[in-house]
Amino acid sequence: MALDEYKPQTGGAEFDENAKDFNHVGTTPNRPDGLDKVTGRARFGADTQAPGMLFASIVRSPHAHARIVKINTDKAEALEGVKAIVTRADFATGLTGEYGYVLENVMAGEKALYDGHAVAAVAATSALAARDAAKLIEVEYEILPHVTDVDAAMQDGAPVINADYADESVPAGMHPNVVRTHESGHGDVDTGFAEADLVVEDHFTTEATHQGYIEPHACLASLGMDGKGELWCCTQGHWYVQKHCAALLGLETSQLRVTASEIGGGFGGKTTVFIEPVALALSRKANRPVKLVMNRSEVFRATGPTSSTSMDVKIGMKKDGTITAAQGVFRLQGGAFPGAPMEFTAMCAFAPYDLKNVSQLGYDVVSNRPKQAAYRAPGSPMAAFAVESVIDELCNQLGLDPVETRLKNAAKEGTKASYGPRFDRIGLVETLEAAKAHPHYSAPLKPGQGRGISCGFWFNHGGETSVSLSLSEDGTAQVSVGTPDIGGSRASMALMAAEVLGIPYENIRVTIADTATLGYNDVSHGSRVTYASGLATIKAARAAVEKMCQRAAQHWGIPEDAVKWEDGCAVPSGPNAGDFDPLPLADITATMGQTGGPISGHFEATPEGAGVSFATHIVDAEVDPETGKTSVSRYTVIQDAGKAIHPTYVEGQYQGGAAQGIGWALNEEYIYGEDGRLQNSVFLDYRIPVASDLPMIDTVIVEVPNPGHPFGVRGVGETSICPPLAAIANAVSAAAGVRLRSLPMSPPKILSALGTHDA
Amino acid sequence: MALDEYKPQTGGAEFDENAKDFNHVGTTPNRPDGLDKVTGRARFGADTQAPGMLFASIVRSPHAHARIVKINTDKAEALEGVKAIVTRADFATGLTGEYGYVLENVMAGEKALYDGHAVAAVAATSALAARDAAKLIEVEYEILPHVTDVDAAMQDGAPVINADYADESVPAGMHPNVVRTHESGHGDVDTGFAEADLVVEDHFTTEATHQGYIEPHACLASLGMDGKGELWCCTQGHWYVQKHCAALLGLETSQLRVTASEIGGGFGGKTTVFIEPVALALSRKANRPVKLVMNRSEVFRATGPTSSTSMDVKIGMKKDGTITAAQGVFRLQGGAFPGAPMEFTAMCAFAPYDLKNVSQLGYDVVSNRPKQAAYRAPGSPMAAFAVESVIDELCNQLGLDPVETRLKNAAKEGTKASYGPRFDRIGLVETLEAAKAHPHYSAPLKPGQGRGISCGFWFNHGGETSVSLSLSEDGTAQVSVGTPDIGGSRASMALMAAEVLGIPYENIRVTIADTATLGYNDVSHGSRVTYASGLATIKAARAAVEKMCQRAAQHWGIPEDAVKWEDGCAVPSGPNAGDFDPLPLADITATMGQTGGPISGHFEATPEGAGVSFATHIVDAEVDPETGKTSVSRYTVIQDAGKAIHPTYVEGQYQGGAAQGIGWALNEEYIYGEDGRLQNSVFLDYRIPVASDLPMIDTVIVEVPNPGHPFGVRGVGETSICPPLAAIANAVSAAAGVRLRSLPMSPPKILSALGTHDA
Repeated sequence: MALDEYKPQTGGAEFDENAKDFNHVGTTPNRPDGLDKVTGRARFGADTQAPGMLFASIVRSPHAHARIVKINTDKAEALEGVKAIVTRADFATGLTGEYGYVLENVMAGEKALYDGHAVAAVAATSALAARDAAKLIEVEYEILPHVTDVDAAMQDGAPVINADYADESVPAGMHPNVVRTHESGHGDVDTGFAEADLVVEDHFTTEATHQGYIEPHACLASLGMDGKGELWCCTQGHWYVQKHCAALLGLETSQLRVTASEIGGGFGGKTTVFIEPVALALSRKANRPVKLVMNRSEVFRATGPTSSTSMDVKIGMKKDGTITAAQGVFRLQGGAFPGAPMEFTAMCAFAPYDLKNVSQLGYDVVSNRPKQAAYRAPGSPMAAFAVESVIDELCNQLGLDPVETRLKNAAKEGTKASYGPRFDRIGLVETLEAAKAHPHYSAPLKPGQGRGISCGFWFNHGGETSVSLSLSEDGTAQVSVGTPDIGGSRASMALMAAEVLGIPYENIRVTIADTATLGYNDVSHGSRVTYASGLATIKAARAAVEKMCQRAAQHWGIPEDAVKWEDGCAVPSGPNAGDFDPLPLADITATMGQTGGPISGHFEATPEGAGVSFATHIVDAEVDPETGKTSVSRYTVIQDAGKAIHPTYVEGQYQGGAAQGIGWALNEEYIYGEDGRLQNSVFLDYRIPVASDLPMIDTVIVEVPNPGHPFGVRGVGETSICPPLAAIANAVSAAAGVRLRSLPMSPPKILSALGTHDA
Repeated sequence: MALDEYKPQTGGAEFDENAKDFNHVGTTPNRPDGLDKVTGRARFGADTQAPGMLFASIVRSPHAHARIVKINTDKAEALEGVKAIVTRADFATGLTGEYGYVLENVMAGEKALYDGHAVAAVAATSALAARDAAKLIEVEYEILPHVTDVDAAMQDGAPVINADYADESVPAGMHPNVVRTHESGHGDVDTGFAEADLVVEDHFTTEATHQGYIEPHACLASLGMDGKGELWCCTQGHWYVQKHCAALLGLETSQLRVTASEIGGGFGGKTTVFIEPVALALSRKANRPVKLVMNRSEVFRATGPTSSTSMDVKIGMKKDGTITAAQGVFRLQGGAFPGAPMEFTAMCAFAPYDLKNVSQLGYDVVSNRPKQAAYRAPGSPMAAFAVESVIDELCNQLGLDPVETRLKNAAKEGTKASYGPRFDRIGLVETLEAAKAHPHYSAPLKPGQGRGISCGFWFNHGGETSVSLSLSEDGTAQVSVGTPDIGGSRASMALMAAEVLGIPYENIRVTIADTATLGYNDVSHGSRVTYASGLATIKAARAAVEKMCQRAAQHWGIPEDAVKWEDGCAVPSGPNAGDFDPLPLADITATMGQTGGPISGHFEATPEGAGVSFATHIVDAEVDPETGKTSVSRYTVIQDAGKAIHPTYVEGQYQGGAAQGIGWALNEEYIYGEDGRLQNSVFLDYRIPVASDLPMIDTVIVEVPNPGHPFGVRGVGETSICPPLAAIANAVSAAAGVRLRSLPMSPPKILSALGTHDA
């Protein structure tokens, strides 16, 4: 969800209050791509080939900050099998704004801006020859001073990444590494703090974490001198890829056909391009298809992790738990380019609460690190970590119940959100009530254990969406959507289509269409897919139903409006009710060629009623004072799904968010050396949670319908990662008896906090 | 064009009389797939691969007619690398009608019905292992008597192919190999013949010829035990493939996604399935992708050639050239299954003429040959050969000019066609007038040369059609059609879309969508693509234009009906004319995400106004009395295109039809031995024309708009092969001084006719 796409999603009038007695929605059939995934038949980014295909390798900067003096490709070109070498000179010129930043990140121009920054690439007849050739490309660097820490990057005298980045939102006198600021809120925080019985103010930091998707970026590109090309790649959004690659290579958008492969995880990290424009440039130069696959180290060094943060939060509370004022300053380090999602951090920070006085300030800070990319609710988990830690501290000091206190301040329908709009129908209170009632919340703790809770918030998103649905003669249906299936959405779309058409789930095939065969679709991000592609699927199916009713009316010789659709059949209604037997879908499609032609339904729109989503998490943790190791012993996720189309996959999203949050909270971090190079660029050194690190994660699906969706759906993919950092920090702080304010809460940090060891 | 789809195309009211001043239509830009085709980037049937792919080989009957007693696969199964073997037992049971015939042809059941009939197939880890394994499959046959000639197959005592084939149209007492009959006409031929000054009656025969496409059939299949599959194949119609493979394998249609590769020629021969169901069955059994590619010998032995024919035609004429009656009996041998297009032969035979008394009778005869398949205007060229030879003979004997005589009898708007309907606006007279005026017709002949002319007719076809068009933000467009591009249709679609949208041809990408991402489309056949997909493209583009006008109205704040579309811009009209500057397409698409969502246009229908098409060909030929070799020294094609969208490709169709007709007339034939085996199953022995066999083929495009198409288009792909057999026979007969009544007019036949040699 790019910043410039952000719109407060204010609900809408799509919800059908009669949408309750579902036949398909709410059931949990097997996923359509299940067999493909377990038998290896599914084709991921690296699983496609073309005759005459070349293999590519990228030359990357070993320096955090360096001027590129000269690139000598003579030796590489002389190597047998080498067919093309590209540098920045092989891409479009004159790009500005986001396109310019993406190009600069894809292939360095005058300067290498971080360890791992691409500076050249080579295509050869084998992967080995390509790697050998890459080693023969001689890059002469002039090494420059570097900075990788967010606070250091803002200090006077810090090396300047790019003096031209800062926009007009940055006050005069700030370091040029501060490139954008955001300010929002309402009321008067000073007055509010004055009314408080207790004010707590604290400083928090989080480290950059990687999305940790299993599948590295991979693509196969074929681009001709005629400007026409095809690209197969692993992405969350192939229209984004199409548009950006077209811009970076100087092509017409429509002339580049992009197909999204199956995706082995993305979590936001596959919402932009890294290798795709490089493969296309090599293909154009070699006039051959080019395959390019990253290794894990390249993924860590050169694709987008989250921002690291430095945050200050101050909250005032009355003895009864009423929050009187809240204030936050959020500094996000987003790598070497503008774009850290500090607005989202700021806007999400206090969104769960109904506040009279609130103020939030964000800073977008650049440094010599890879360009940050979206990661599940970008910016929000860090905000929740800081804010919910302070609320926890206030409750502790005032002796208040943390759930009751949150309930007292909880945002409701009509609340003016801290970030501006008034909330429509929302479900925060329901998640808190469910938490209070859940056995986990009242279960006794064992000695050494601590319990934490946290709320979390995400906007959710609509976005540009196109869906087409066509019927086959045998009465089965094909749904063509443009949002890559990152969380079981094929199953959800099939369920929604089955509901409208009145045919079995198994009779529907959902396909992720390529860019050439469907209208524009935004990326699978912003928790938008089940909402927006789902809404579009429902409307496309309804359009097909309307055509089927017309055919039935024509068949019976009655007016079109005298036919309704019930349980998969056209049925005469009104004055004609009972005059004819119901006409099943398959009977209508069997003759459709002769009764007017193929029956399809289509829908294109930018729906704007995504409906915000809230969650409350409860965590029990224990800390080993000897080793500093934290164990999460119990975890419960309670979240509003609006309506769970496929409850098992909703639970999977809840559990996945919690699991990733546990990793972020406890172990994951980017570790840079003094030389500005990443020191832990493989999974052996960058520690994501494995099964044995996790408890069974319990889930409660709350359903408060979203007025903006026909069946009440709210996106669920992102909110689930908002509370974990804070909930776990609160649990760990309770268990350790000391407040933890810096993530990850890795063993050295825990030992340091316990005073038993200097981290 | 399957028989049961046939409907007389009666024109319609789609033609826009203002569609004259075209900006794009009628120009001849390079084809969008040009670079792909000349650089080898285009991917044909055999050009795709999948990880873990197996290779397959088919075991074929060496007997023309044999009972399959036993198939022993033990030795083959024991061979290393063999992963699956299938026989008929691996396909669906209980299929009847056309599905039953297709299955029986794809894989023999109880009997092998022709030399080359598939009886088993094997998939292995290499193509070599598959071929070795195929040789190890032991098939025990009980050899049965066979028949391969059409007249012999109808005689008493001929071996019966299948006693259950014949339908109710066959009179009692006929041989069971006559499986269907057709009778049509009007008036009373006996009265007509009595009024004639001269009646000529003759017997004609033609041999089976193959479409001779360069690319053999090839596919890659992947089908899981879950009934979900993907198929990549070389075909003229992937929805047909989808539907038939689903039926033959017992799948739901929608669960099989079929993608059409580029196609190296089809000419009707790729309108059905041969290897695709076999590859799918092997894939399902092996749980691996399976690639199956035919060799040329398999193409000849086991895919569909044309019917061979035996025909009697009788025509009566007055001295002034008026035809008083016409009668024809057309016996078509269609291989081992019902379906020879004898109706088309009968209905096309006399279609060019306005006749008071006409009668036509067709017989569908089965024999021990491969199932015939469509080949460019199926059935019509043979009819023209017989009928136009008799007319030529009548003109010769009565001393009449062959063009004037045809003009005197020519069908016009309002004529009751010999096959039933009344003609709408047609262009036969215009082609004859153009022939009369053409320098070729009056050019002096050299000694030894003869000149022949012939008219020809084809119905053309509409068929089920779906097209979607989407716009990109940069103002370029993507058109998604479902008819494989067999004759430059991507260029034609782009031209028509450019005309409606008002943007450059180069800004449009036309893609052949797969079955999962577009509504149903009939096969690329019946000369329907430029007509039907073109009409649907125009209507889809108009739907997108309507949406753009709505966005402009919204932008300007004026009513939607106060906006018109001119030269690629929305323009205020009526009372608002001149109030705002024209809004170009790219300005509207640039913001479409924010003004309502992606802009697309869609159209689905079964258009029924294809508009019939006529041609007149003029041929000069000379015969070498020494060798019997015929040379075509000059050739002119004059044909009504309605409106030539891309004139160069229209000319290409005219020339291609003539070239294939020359081969059919002079050299091509299936030669069966006494043993019922095909003796010339490679291109060295089956002689298609090469460049040195052909003169420059001159073309004249006549344009009499088809009322059934917005721009007046008539299909042009098939009519061009209807006159050549007759026109060449008439020229050869004139040159040789003796009437040739049997095709091919190969050197032995010519020598025999000249009486200088016994053939």
